[in-house]
Amino acid sequence: MSAKAYTEPHRVVYYEADDTGHLTVAMLINLFVLVSDDQSNDLGLPTDFIQSFGVGWVVTQYHVQITRLPRTGETVTLKTRATAYNRYFAYREYWLLDANGETLAYGEGIWVTMSYANRKITTIPAAIMAPYQSEETSRLPRLPRPKRLDETATLTTKPYRVRYFDIDNNGHVNNAHYFDWLLDSLPADFLRTHRPVDVQIRFENEVQYGHQVASQVVHADAATTQHRIMIGDTIAAIATVGWQSI
Amino acid sequence: MSAKAYTEPHRVVYYEADDTGHLTVAMLINLFVLVSDDQSNDLGLPTDFIQSFGVGWVVTQYHVQITRLPRTGETVTLKTRATAYNRYFAYREYWLLDANGETLAYGEGIWVTMSYANRKITTIPAAIMAPYQSEETSRLPRLPRPKRLDETATLTTKPYRVRYFDIDNNGHVNNAHYFDWLLDSLPADFLRTHRPVDVQIRFENEVQYGHQVASQVVHADAATTQHRIMIGDTIAAIATVGWQSI
Repeated sequence: MSAKAYTEPHRVVYYEADDTGHLTVAMLINLFVLVSDDQSNDLGLPTDFIQSFGVGWVVTQYHVQITRLPRTGETVTLKTRATAYNRYFAYREYWLLDANGETLAYGEGIWVTMSYANRKITTIPAAIMAPYQSEETSRLPRLPRPKRLDETATLTTKPYRVRYFDIDNNGHVNNAHYFDWLLDSLPADFLRTHRPVDVQIRFENEVQYGHQVASQVVHADAATTQHRIMIGDTIAAIATVGWQSI
Repeated sequence: MSAKAYTEPHRVVYYEADDTGHLTVAMLINLFVLVSDDQSNDLGLPTDFIQSFGVGWVVTQYHVQITRLPRTGETVTLKTRATAYNRYFAYREYWLLDANGETLAYGEGIWVTMSYANRKITTIPAAIMAPYQSEETSRLPRLPRPKRLDETATLTTKPYRVRYFDIDNNGHVNNAHYFDWLLDSLPADFLRTHRPVDVQIRFENEVQYGHQVASQVVHADAATTQHRIMIGDTIAAIATVGWQSI
Protein backbone atom coordinates (compact mmCIF):
# COMPACT_ATOMS: atom_id res chain seq x y z
CA MET A 1 0.00 0.00 0.00
CA SER A 2 1.49 3.33 -0.94
CA ALA A 3 0.92 6.72 0.59
CA LYS A 4 -2.09 8.78 -0.44
CA ALA A 5 -1.32 11.66 -2.76
CA TYR A 6 -3.20 14.95 -2.51
CA THR A 7 -3.43 17.62 -5.19
CA GLU A 8 -4.95 21.07 -5.60
CA PRO A 9 -4.80 23.81 -8.22
CA HIS A 10 -3.13 27.16 -7.56
CA ARG A 11 -3.01 30.32 -9.63
CA VAL A 12 0.33 32.17 -9.33
CA VAL A 13 -0.44 35.85 -8.62
CA TYR A 14 1.69 38.97 -8.78
CA TYR A 15 2.59 39.21 -5.10
CA GLU A 16 3.97 35.67 -5.18
CA ALA A 17 6.44 36.57 -7.94
CA ASP A 18 9.75 38.41 -8.03
CA ASP A 19 10.67 41.29 -10.32
CA THR A 20 11.27 38.89 -13.22
CA GLY A 21 7.64 37.73 -12.88
CA HIS A 22 8.53 34.23 -11.62
CA LEU A 23 7.30 32.54 -8.45
CA THR A 24 9.81 33.07 -5.64
CA VAL A 25 11.49 30.14 -3.90
CA ALA A 26 10.01 31.33 -0.58
CA MET A 27 6.52 31.19 -2.09
CA LEU A 28 7.25 27.75 -3.57
CA ILE A 29 7.95 26.52 -0.03
CA ASN A 30 4.76 28.23 1.20
CA LEU A 31 2.80 26.37 -1.47
CA PHE A 32 4.39 23.02 -0.54
CA VAL A 33 3.41 23.57 3.09
CA LEU A 34 -0.06 24.73 2.03
CA VAL A 35 -0.83 21.56 0.08
CA SER A 36 0.42 19.35 2.91
CA ASP A 37 -1.71 21.34 5.43
CA ASP A 38 -4.69 20.89 3.15
CA GLN A 39 -4.04 17.16 2.89
CA SER A 40 -3.81 16.91 6.67
CA ASN A 41 -7.10 18.76 7.13
CA ASP A 42 -8.70 16.60 4.44
CA LEU A 43 -7.63 13.46 6.31
CA GLY A 44 -8.98 14.71 9.63
CA LEU A 45 -5.61 15.82 10.98
CA PRO A 46 -6.00 19.55 11.68
CA THR A 47 -3.40 21.38 13.74
CA ASP A 48 -5.41 21.23 16.97
CA PHE A 49 -5.65 17.44 16.66
CA ILE A 50 -1.85 17.22 16.26
CA GLN A 51 -1.43 19.56 19.24
CA SER A 52 -3.70 17.34 21.37
CA PHE A 53 -0.76 14.89 21.43
CA GLY A 54 1.46 17.60 22.91
CA VAL A 55 3.53 17.81 19.73
CA GLY A 56 3.97 19.88 16.60
CA TRP A 57 5.50 19.05 13.23
CA VAL A 58 8.87 20.71 12.58
CA VAL A 59 10.79 20.53 9.30
CA THR A 60 14.50 19.75 9.55
CA GLN A 61 15.56 19.57 5.89
CA TYR A 62 14.35 20.31 2.39
CA HIS A 63 15.78 19.40 -0.98
CA VAL A 64 14.07 21.13 -3.90
CA GLN A 65 14.91 20.55 -7.56
CA ILE A 66 13.53 23.15 -9.92
CA THR A 67 13.05 22.74 -13.66
CA ARG A 68 11.24 26.04 -14.13
CA LEU A 69 9.53 28.47 -11.78
CA PRO A 70 6.04 29.37 -13.06
CA ARG A 71 5.10 32.90 -14.06
CA THR A 72 2.41 35.20 -12.73
CA GLY A 73 -0.96 34.13 -14.15
CA GLU A 74 -0.07 30.45 -14.61
CA THR A 75 -2.32 27.89 -12.98
CA VAL A 76 -0.27 25.06 -11.52
CA THR A 77 -1.04 21.92 -9.58
CA LEU A 78 0.35 21.39 -6.09
CA LYS A 79 0.83 17.75 -5.14
CA THR A 80 2.17 16.04 -2.06
CA ARG A 81 2.49 12.65 -0.42
CA ALA A 82 3.66 11.64 3.07
CA THR A 83 5.70 8.89 1.50
CA ALA A 84 7.46 7.09 4.33
CA TYR A 85 8.38 7.35 8.00
CA ASN A 86 10.15 5.66 10.86
CA ARG A 87 10.02 6.11 14.62
CA TYR A 88 11.36 9.68 14.56
CA PHE A 89 11.35 10.95 11.00
CA ALA A 90 8.73 11.48 8.30
CA TYR A 91 9.72 11.82 4.64
CA ARG A 92 7.35 13.90 2.51
CA GLU A 93 7.44 14.60 -1.24
CA TYR A 94 6.06 17.63 -3.07
CA TRP A 95 5.47 18.47 -6.70
CA LEU A 96 4.62 21.60 -8.60
CA LEU A 97 3.13 20.63 -11.98
CA ASP A 98 2.30 22.80 -14.97
CA ALA A 99 -0.98 22.75 -16.93
CA ASN A 100 0.25 19.73 -18.93
CA GLY A 101 1.21 17.77 -15.82
CA GLU A 102 4.94 18.33 -16.37
CA THR A 103 6.99 18.71 -13.19
CA LEU A 104 8.18 22.27 -12.61
CA ALA A 105 9.62 21.57 -9.18
CA TYR A 106 10.10 18.52 -6.99
CA GLY A 107 10.68 18.78 -3.28
CA GLU A 108 11.55 16.43 -0.46
CA GLY A 109 11.27 17.25 3.23
CA ILE A 110 12.22 15.55 6.47
CA TRP A 111 9.87 16.32 9.34
CA VAL A 112 9.95 15.45 13.03
CA THR A 113 7.50 15.89 15.88
CA MET A 114 8.68 18.14 18.69
CA SER A 115 7.25 17.92 22.19
CA TYR A 116 5.80 21.17 23.52
CA ALA A 117 6.74 20.05 27.05
CA ASN A 118 10.51 19.82 26.59
CA ARG A 119 11.09 21.16 23.03
CA LYS A 120 12.71 17.82 22.13
CA ILE A 121 12.11 15.43 19.27
CA THR A 122 9.61 12.72 20.21
CA THR A 123 8.42 9.44 18.74
CA ILE A 124 5.86 10.28 16.05
CA PRO A 125 2.40 9.47 17.51
CA ALA A 126 0.85 6.65 15.44
CA ALA A 127 -2.56 8.34 15.30
CA ILE A 128 -1.24 11.40 13.46
CA MET A 129 0.63 9.26 10.92
CA ALA A 130 -1.80 6.46 10.07
CA PRO A 131 -4.28 8.40 7.87
CA TYR A 132 -1.55 9.26 5.34
CA GLN A 133 -0.99 5.53 4.67
CA SER A 134 2.74 6.23 4.71
CA GLU A 135 5.11 3.32 4.45
CA GLU A 136 6.83 2.51 7.75
CA THR A 137 10.43 1.73 6.95
CA SER A 138 13.80 1.49 8.61
CA ARG A 139 15.44 2.82 5.44
CA LEU A 140 14.22 6.37 4.99
CA PRO A 141 15.65 8.33 2.03
CA ARG A 142 18.43 10.70 3.09
CA LEU A 143 18.50 14.21 1.72
CA PRO A 144 21.83 15.75 0.66
CA ARG A 145 23.36 17.79 3.47
CA PRO A 146 24.32 21.34 2.58
CA LYS A 147 28.08 21.77 2.91
CA ARG A 148 29.50 23.73 5.83
CA LEU A 149 30.84 27.09 4.69
CA ASP A 150 34.56 27.40 4.18
CA GLU A 151 35.51 29.51 7.23
CA THR A 152 38.53 30.94 5.40
CA ALA A 153 36.45 32.24 2.47
CA THR A 154 35.27 35.83 2.22
CA LEU A 155 31.65 35.89 3.27
CA THR A 156 29.11 38.46 2.20
CA THR A 157 26.78 39.19 5.10
CA LYS A 158 23.46 41.00 5.31
CA PRO A 159 21.57 41.54 8.57
CA TYR A 160 17.85 40.81 9.04
CA ARG A 161 15.67 41.47 12.05
CA VAL A 162 12.84 38.99 12.52
CA ARG A 163 9.61 40.97 12.13
CA TYR A 164 6.20 40.49 13.68
CA PHE A 165 4.76 39.49 10.30
CA ASP A 166 7.45 36.82 9.84
CA ILE A 167 5.79 34.86 12.67
CA ASP A 168 2.91 32.60 11.81
CA ASN A 169 -0.04 31.23 13.71
CA ASN A 170 2.03 28.77 15.75
CA GLY A 171 4.35 31.49 17.06
CA HIS A 172 7.31 30.35 14.95
CA VAL A 173 9.05 32.08 12.10
CA ASN A 174 7.47 30.84 8.87
CA ASN A 175 10.33 28.81 7.36
CA ALA A 176 9.70 30.33 3.95
CA HIS A 177 11.24 33.60 5.16
CA TYR A 178 14.63 31.90 5.45
CA PHE A 179 14.67 31.67 1.66
CA ASP A 180 14.14 35.41 1.26
CA TRP A 181 17.00 36.06 3.70
CA LEU A 182 19.23 33.48 2.00
CA LEU A 183 18.69 34.73 -1.54
CA ASP A 184 18.47 38.47 -0.79
CA SER A 185 22.10 38.25 0.32
CA LEU A 186 23.02 37.87 -3.37
CA PRO A 187 23.21 40.91 -5.68
CA ALA A 188 20.03 41.78 -7.63
CA ASP A 189 21.98 41.46 -10.89
CA PHE A 190 22.88 37.88 -10.03
CA LEU A 191 19.28 37.06 -9.09
CA ARG A 192 17.97 38.53 -12.33
CA THR A 193 20.42 36.60 -14.52
CA HIS A 194 20.39 33.24 -12.75
CA ARG A 195 17.66 30.86 -11.77
CA PRO A 196 17.85 28.44 -8.85
CA VAL A 197 17.79 24.79 -9.91
CA ASP A 198 18.74 22.93 -6.73
CA VAL A 199 18.09 24.11 -3.17
CA GLN A 200 19.27 22.18 -0.12
CA ILE A 201 18.57 23.52 3.34
CA ARG A 202 18.97 22.16 6.82
CA PHE A 203 17.38 23.90 9.80
CA GLU A 204 19.50 23.65 12.93
CA ASN A 205 18.21 26.15 15.48
CA GLU A 206 14.98 28.04 15.83
CA VAL A 207 14.85 31.74 14.99
CA GLN A 208 12.44 33.83 17.06
CA TYR A 209 10.67 37.19 16.90
CA GLY A 210 13.07 40.05 17.52
CA HIS A 211 16.19 38.00 16.76
CA GLN A 212 18.77 39.71 14.62
CA VAL A 213 20.06 37.19 12.09
CA ALA A 214 22.93 37.38 9.61
CA SER A 215 22.55 35.86 6.15
CA GLN A 216 26.00 34.85 4.95
CA VAL A 217 26.91 33.68 1.47
CA VAL A 218 29.97 32.53 -0.43
CA HIS A 219 30.27 31.48 -4.08
CA ALA A 220 31.61 27.91 -4.07
CA ASP A 221 31.84 28.07 -7.87
CA ALA A 222 30.03 29.90 -10.69
CA ALA A 223 26.99 27.65 -10.35
CA THR A 224 26.87 27.10 -6.58
CA THR A 225 26.34 29.37 -3.60
CA GLN A 226 26.73 28.28 0.01
CA HIS A 227 24.70 29.99 2.70
CA ARG A 228 24.09 30.11 6.37
CA ILE A 229 21.76 31.99 8.67
CA MET A 230 23.44 32.88 11.96
CA ILE A 231 21.98 34.05 15.28
CA GLY A 232 25.15 35.45 16.80
CA ASP A 233 27.54 32.47 16.80
CA THR A 234 24.76 29.92 16.49
CA ILE A 235 23.88 28.41 13.11
CA ALA A 236 20.13 28.66 12.48
CA ALA A 237 20.28 27.09 9.02
CA ILE A 238 22.75 26.10 6.32
CA ALA A 239 21.95 25.88 2.64
CA THR A 240 23.49 25.16 -0.74
CA VAL A 241 21.92 26.54 -3.91
CA GLY A 242 22.71 25.45 -7.46
CA TRP A 243 22.12 27.98 -10.26
CA GLN A 244 21.83 28.18 -14.02
CA SER A 245 22.45 31.38 -15.88
CA ILE A 246 19.44 32.60 -17.86
CA MET B 1 -24.31 54.47 -16.23
CA SER B 2 -22.30 53.27 -13.28
CA ALA B 3 -18.90 51.62 -13.25
CA LYS B 4 -18.60 47.89 -13.78
CA ALA B 5 -17.94 45.89 -10.63
CA TYR B 6 -15.72 42.82 -10.68
CA THR B 7 -15.63 40.05 -8.08
CA GLU B 8 -13.67 36.89 -7.43
CA PRO B 9 -13.44 34.39 -4.58
CA HIS B 10 -10.31 34.03 -2.48
CA ARG B 11 -9.38 31.52 0.19
CA VAL B 12 -7.29 33.02 3.00
CA VAL B 13 -4.29 30.73 3.58
CA TYR B 14 -1.79 30.45 6.41
CA TYR B 15 1.00 32.48 4.85
CA GLU B 16 -1.37 35.43 4.36
CA ALA B 17 -2.15 35.56 8.09
CA ASP B 18 -0.33 36.90 11.13
CA ASP B 19 0.35 35.00 14.33
CA THR B 20 -3.22 35.58 15.52
CA GLY B 21 -4.44 33.74 12.39
CA HIS B 22 -5.97 36.84 10.77
CA LEU B 23 -5.27 38.21 7.29
CA THR B 24 -2.58 40.90 7.48
CA VAL B 25 -3.25 44.46 6.32
CA ALA B 26 -0.40 44.09 3.79
CA MET B 27 -2.10 41.04 2.32
CA LEU B 28 -5.47 42.85 2.28
CA ILE B 29 -3.85 45.50 0.08
CA ASN B 30 -2.33 42.77 -2.12
CA LEU B 31 -5.80 41.28 -2.56
CA PHE B 32 -7.31 44.66 -3.45
CA VAL B 33 -4.64 45.16 -6.10
CA LEU B 34 -5.09 41.58 -7.31
CA VAL B 35 -8.83 41.95 -7.94
CA SER B 36 -8.30 45.25 -9.76
CA ASP B 37 -5.54 43.67 -11.90
CA ASP B 38 -7.90 40.82 -12.70
CA GLN B 39 -10.65 43.25 -13.65
CA SER B 40 -8.23 45.12 -15.90
CA ASN B 41 -7.15 41.91 -17.63
CA ASP B 42 -10.77 40.82 -17.96
CA LEU B 43 -11.61 44.12 -19.69
CA GLY B 44 -8.70 43.81 -22.10
CA LEU B 45 -6.44 46.20 -20.21
CA PRO B 46 -3.34 44.14 -19.37
CA THR B 47 -0.20 45.86 -18.10
CA ASP B 48 1.54 45.82 -21.49
CA PHE B 49 -1.44 47.62 -23.04
CA ILE B 50 -1.24 50.33 -20.34
CA GLN B 51 2.51 50.56 -20.90
CA SER B 52 1.96 51.03 -24.65
CA PHE B 53 0.72 54.53 -23.75
CA GLY B 54 4.03 55.25 -22.04
CA VAL B 55 2.40 55.31 -18.62
CA GLY B 56 1.87 53.18 -15.54
CA TRP B 57 -0.74 53.35 -12.80
CA VAL B 58 0.59 54.59 -9.45
CA VAL B 59 -1.43 54.72 -6.23
CA THR B 60 -1.19 57.93 -4.22
CA GLN B 61 -3.62 57.29 -1.33
CA TYR B 62 -5.63 54.55 0.32
CA HIS B 63 -8.31 54.70 2.96
CA VAL B 64 -9.31 51.29 4.33
CA GLN B 65 -12.05 50.71 6.90
CA ILE B 66 -11.98 47.29 8.49
CA THR B 67 -14.87 45.61 10.31
CA ARG B 68 -13.10 42.29 10.74
CA LEU B 69 -10.07 40.69 9.16
CA PRO B 70 -10.86 37.15 7.98
CA ARG B 71 -9.13 34.10 9.42
CA THR B 72 -7.03 31.42 7.74
CA GLY B 73 -9.32 29.01 5.92
CA GLU B 74 -12.14 31.50 5.27
CA THR B 75 -13.26 31.96 1.69
CA VAL B 76 -13.99 35.60 1.01
CA THR B 77 -15.08 37.60 -2.01
CA LEU B 78 -12.90 40.34 -3.44
CA LYS B 79 -14.80 43.09 -5.20
CA THR B 80 -13.74 46.29 -6.92
CA ARG B 81 -15.04 49.07 -9.11
CA ALA B 82 -13.22 51.91 -10.89
CA THR B 83 -15.94 54.25 -9.69
CA ALA B 84 -15.01 57.68 -10.99
CA TYR B 85 -12.21 59.74 -12.52
CA ASN B 86 -11.22 63.13 -13.79
CA ARG B 87 -8.38 64.33 -15.98
CA TYR B 88 -5.62 63.31 -13.58
CA PHE B 89 -7.10 61.13 -10.85
CA ALA B 90 -8.99 57.84 -10.76
CA TYR B 91 -11.02 56.85 -7.71
CA ARG B 92 -11.36 53.11 -7.12
CA GLU B 93 -13.34 51.23 -4.48
CA TYR B 94 -12.62 47.80 -3.02
CA TRP B 95 -14.56 45.39 -0.83
CA LEU B 96 -13.70 42.27 1.06
CA LEU B 97 -16.92 40.32 1.72
CA ASP B 98 -17.51 37.29 3.91
CA ALA B 99 -19.40 34.13 2.88
CA ASN B 100 -22.72 35.86 3.68
CA GLY B 101 -21.90 38.93 1.62
CA GLU B 102 -21.23 41.09 4.69
CA THR B 103 -18.48 43.67 4.26
CA LEU B 104 -15.32 42.80 6.19
CA ALA B 105 -13.28 45.65 4.76
CA TYR B 106 -13.94 48.59 2.46
CA GLY B 107 -11.15 50.40 0.69
CA GLU B 108 -10.82 53.49 -1.44
CA GLY B 109 -7.80 54.37 -3.54
CA ILE B 110 -6.69 57.34 -5.59
CA TRP B 111 -4.59 56.41 -8.61
CA VAL B 112 -2.72 58.48 -11.18
CA THR B 113 -0.91 57.65 -14.40
CA MET B 114 2.80 58.40 -14.38
CA SER B 115 4.76 58.95 -17.57
CA TYR B 116 7.75 56.65 -18.00
CA ALA B 117 9.48 59.40 -19.99
CA ASN B 118 9.64 62.07 -17.28
CA ARG B 119 8.29 60.27 -14.16
CA LYS B 120 5.57 62.91 -13.91
CA ILE B 121 1.81 62.63 -13.56
CA THR B 122 0.06 62.72 -16.93
CA THR B 123 -3.49 63.04 -18.20
CA ILE B 124 -5.11 59.63 -17.92
CA PRO B 125 -5.30 58.19 -21.48
CA ALA B 126 -8.98 57.77 -22.43
CA ALA B 127 -8.42 54.31 -23.93
CA ILE B 128 -7.24 52.81 -20.63
CA MET B 129 -10.19 54.30 -18.71
CA ALA B 130 -13.18 53.73 -21.00
CA PRO B 131 -13.67 49.96 -20.51
CA TYR B 132 -14.29 50.40 -16.76
CA GLN B 133 -17.35 52.59 -17.52
CA SER B 134 -16.18 54.92 -14.76
CA GLU B 135 -18.05 58.13 -14.21
CA GLU B 136 -16.14 61.18 -15.43
CA THR B 137 -16.63 63.88 -12.84
CA SER B 138 -15.15 67.13 -11.71
CA ARG B 139 -16.03 66.29 -8.10
CA LEU B 140 -13.99 63.24 -7.16
CA PRO B 141 -14.30 61.98 -3.57
CA ARG B 142 -11.41 63.12 -1.38
CA LEU B 143 -9.79 60.66 0.98
CA PRO B 144 -8.83 61.76 4.49
CA ARG B 145 -5.23 62.92 4.67
CA PRO B 146 -3.11 61.27 7.32
CA LYS B 147 -1.92 63.86 9.82
CA ARG B 148 1.69 65.02 9.82
CA LEU B 149 3.58 63.64 12.80
CA ASP B 150 4.10 65.93 15.72
CA GLU B 151 7.83 66.70 15.37
CA THR B 152 8.14 67.32 19.10
CA ALA B 153 6.75 63.89 20.05
CA THR B 154 8.97 60.97 20.91
CA LEU B 155 9.10 58.76 17.86
CA THR B 156 9.80 55.07 17.88
CA THR B 157 11.89 54.19 14.84
CA LYS B 158 12.78 50.88 13.24
CA PRO B 159 15.05 50.57 10.19
CA TYR B 160 14.21 48.49 7.10
CA ARG B 161 16.35 47.80 4.06
CA VAL B 162 14.40 47.32 0.84
CA ARG B 163 15.03 43.75 -0.26
CA TYR B 164 15.15 42.20 -3.70
CA PHE B 165 11.93 40.30 -3.03
CA ASP B 166 10.13 43.53 -2.05
CA ILE B 167 10.36 44.59 -5.71
CA ASP B 168 7.66 43.40 -8.05
CA ASN B 169 7.44 42.83 -11.76
CA ASN B 170 7.39 46.54 -12.64
CA GLY B 171 10.64 47.23 -10.77
CA HIS B 172 8.89 49.13 -7.95
CA VAL B 173 8.51 48.24 -4.33
CA ASN B 174 5.18 46.46 -3.91
CA ASN B 175 3.18 49.02 -1.92
CA ALA B 176 1.88 46.30 0.39
CA HIS B 177 5.30 46.11 2.04
CA TYR B 178 4.83 49.62 3.43
CA PHE B 179 2.12 48.21 5.69
CA ASP B 180 4.47 45.59 7.13
CA TRP B 181 7.05 48.30 7.82
CA LEU B 182 4.42 50.63 9.30
CA LEU B 183 2.85 48.08 11.62
CA ASP B 184 6.02 46.16 12.57
CA SER B 185 7.23 49.37 14.23
CA LEU B 186 4.62 48.70 16.96
CA PRO B 187 5.29 46.19 19.76
CA ALA B 188 4.09 42.61 19.18
CA ASP B 189 1.99 42.83 22.36
CA PHE B 190 0.14 45.83 20.96
CA LEU B 191 -0.43 44.08 17.61
CA ARG B 192 -1.77 40.96 19.33
CA THR B 193 -4.21 42.90 21.52
CA HIS B 194 -5.45 45.47 19.01
CA ARG B 195 -6.97 45.23 15.60
CA PRO B 196 -6.72 47.93 12.92
CA VAL B 197 -10.09 49.47 12.03
CA ASP B 198 -9.13 52.48 9.94
CA VAL B 199 -6.00 52.84 7.81
CA GLN B 200 -5.16 56.03 5.93
CA ILE B 201 -1.97 56.21 3.90
CA ARG B 202 -0.54 58.70 1.48
CA PHE B 203 2.45 57.83 -0.70
CA GLU B 204 4.72 60.80 -1.29
CA ASN B 205 8.02 59.54 -2.68
CA GLU B 206 9.08 56.30 -4.27
CA VAL B 207 11.17 53.80 -2.33
CA GLN B 208 13.68 51.78 -4.34
CA TYR B 209 15.69 48.58 -4.04
CA GLY B 210 18.56 48.96 -1.61
CA HIS B 211 17.10 52.03 0.10
CA GLN B 212 17.31 52.07 3.85
CA VAL B 213 14.02 53.35 5.22
CA ALA B 214 12.97 54.28 8.74
CA SER B 215 9.49 53.42 9.96
CA GLN B 216 8.52 55.97 12.61
CA VAL B 217 5.49 55.81 14.86
CA VAL B 218 3.91 57.88 17.60
CA HIS B 219 0.76 57.16 19.61
CA ALA B 220 -1.58 60.11 19.04
CA ASP B 221 -3.98 58.60 21.58
CA ALA B 222 -4.86 55.11 22.85
CA ALA B 223 -6.77 54.32 19.66
CA THR B 224 -4.66 56.11 17.04
CA THR B 225 -1.12 55.70 15.79
CA GLN B 226 0.58 58.09 13.39
CA HIS B 227 3.28 56.79 11.09
CA ARG B 228 5.74 57.81 8.49
CA ILE B 229 8.25 56.05 6.30
CA MET B 230 11.40 58.11 5.77
CA ILE B 231 14.23 57.79 3.25
CA GLY B 232 16.78 59.91 5.04
CA ASP B 233 15.05 63.29 5.40
CA THR B 234 12.51 62.57 2.66
CA ILE B 235 9.00 61.39 3.51
CA ALA B 236 8.13 58.29 1.48
CA ALA B 237 4.69 57.82 3.06
CA ILE B 238 2.60 59.04 5.95
CA ALA B 239 -0.18 57.06 7.58
CA THR B 240 -2.70 57.17 10.39
CA VAL B 241 -4.11 53.96 11.84
CA GLY B 242 -7.13 53.65 14.11
CA TRP B 243 -7.27 50.66 16.48
CA GLN B 244 -9.71 48.79 18.66
CA SER B 245 -8.54 46.68 21.56
CA ILE B 246 -9.49 43.02 21.26
